[in-house]
Amino acid sequence: MNIILFAAKELKKNQLNLDDCRARHIHKILKSRPGDILKVGVLNGPRGSGMVRSISPSQVTLDIKLDNKPVSRPMTDLILALPRPIMLKRILAQSACLGVDNIYLINSRRVEKSFFNASLLKDEIMTDYLCHGLEQAGTTMLPRVAIHPRFRPFVEDMIPRISLSCPVRLMAHPLTSALLPQVIPVPLREKVLLAVGPEGGWLDYEIEKFREQEFKLFSMGPRILKVETAVTALLAQLELLRHFQPAGG
Amino acid sequence: MNIILFAAKELKKNQLNLDDCRARHIHKILKSRPGDILKVGVLNGPRGSGMVRSISPSQVTLDIKLDNKPVSRPMTDLILALPRPIMLKRILAQSACLGVDNIYLINSRRVEKSFFNASLLKDEIMTDYLCHGLEQAGTTMLPRVAIHPRFRPFVEDMIPRISLSCPVRLMAHPLTSALLPQVIPVPLREKVLLAVGPEGGWLDYEIEKFREQEFKLFSMGPRILKVETAVTALLAQLELLRHFQPAGG
Repeated sequence: MNIILFAAKELKKNQLNLDDCRARHIHKILKSRPGDILKVGVLNGPRGSGMVRSISPSQVTLDIKLDNKPVSRPMTDLILALPRPIMLKRILAQSACLGVDNIYLINSRRVEKSFFNASLLKDEIMTDYLCHGLEQAGTTMLPRVAIHPRFRPFVEDMIPRISLSCPVRLMAHPLTSALLPQVIPVPLREKVLLAVGPEGGWLDYEIEKFREQEFKLFSMGPRILKVETAVTALLAQLELLRHFQPAGG
Repeated sequence: MNIILFAAKELKKNQLNLDDCRARHIHKILKSRPGDILKVGVLNGPRGSGMVRSISPSQVTLDIKLDNKPVSRPMTDLILALPRPIMLKRILAQSACLGVDNIYLINSRRVEKSFFNASLLKDEIMTDYLCHGLEQAGTTMLPRVAIHPRFRPFVEDMIPRISLSCPVRLMAHPLTSALLPQVIPVPLREKVLLAVGPEGGWLDYEIEKFREQEFKLFSMGPRILKVETAVTALLAQLELLRHFQPAGG
């Protein structure tokens, strides 16, 4: 944990009392002592510092001081053909860590129907994995996850609404030759809606539906990546393009 | 498996006889039939096609035709403070998948000494994980892995030798403000030697030793990434910078 996260309602008169895994982490892993200062953050809110007031193996009290600086929400929304649960766990954590605003888990012909019954898809379980990612990154903005088990209504009805706030819409496609920097303005300043397909790829019909919604197709190069590797690679590349300013520029 | 890999010596008169996990994969997962064409590749050699001549649940014979096109070796060498074995497995596969030429597993003050005794570090076990990555990517060039349990001799004696073929030497550092495109020429054309530290980071002393070897420090931004996420993110970013040619450029 590179930040101790808590919900706004847990804070009582600028004091935070912890008796769960966060307390055990502070005691056992961080080996904190009274007076130590820890990095803390309110879920979906500001960050700040927490001074250890008292500590035991099972209970920690922190005096909290929050920054004035707001944390902004990430500039990428992710559409993901629902992957198998063991992979989804890692993708949720990595997406929260690298910075995603909304995650839309959708259906596709190549998604196994049983994946939509996975117990992982319960809100509180997904939130756990997302929080792991935030705790790793040291930030507070929790991605919002929505599940859409029907492909067409999502693409035809939801995407036009999402698109209002995402002017740049992108989809990796192996039969395209244009690379990412060739299909978007660089440096990238606008919000992106990125669609990542299932193992084996989207069907032609599905790609056509995304194209109707003005998704731009680009190539990730000749190597075939696992979905989880592709998500990390693409989020990292978009981040680079957001801050792109070469030495001579 | 997006490619069936084999060693050059397995090929007998343009025929490949398989009776191991590759045969079972072709039978059970790919459900191939006689006459089907599969993508194949010689480890560290050319790719080509294999026509299924005969197939049973445990034995497959392929007629092999190899391309004339050579596969080039990747343009990145990776120095990695030896991570814990469970993470190293994934990093090996991901590095092979994304494309790394040499991997140097080295010591650092924050590396647990016991990691150097991990059974994973046996050549044939590491090769298995590397091959998983190649099979995923659909390519053939196996990264070469070397283990260096002593930090100073590696940095002082080995890096000057490695540097002869790697003009660009890079190290991510949280206290730097320059971003990756600001410290290297873009588009990137030269071979890169990239150093990735342990969880918790290199010591100041260690960073100083790398700087003496003309490593350029750059920032990955405010988010703190796990080592395995950082490796994937950085390899993806370097790949983007190699092919960087914006639409207007």
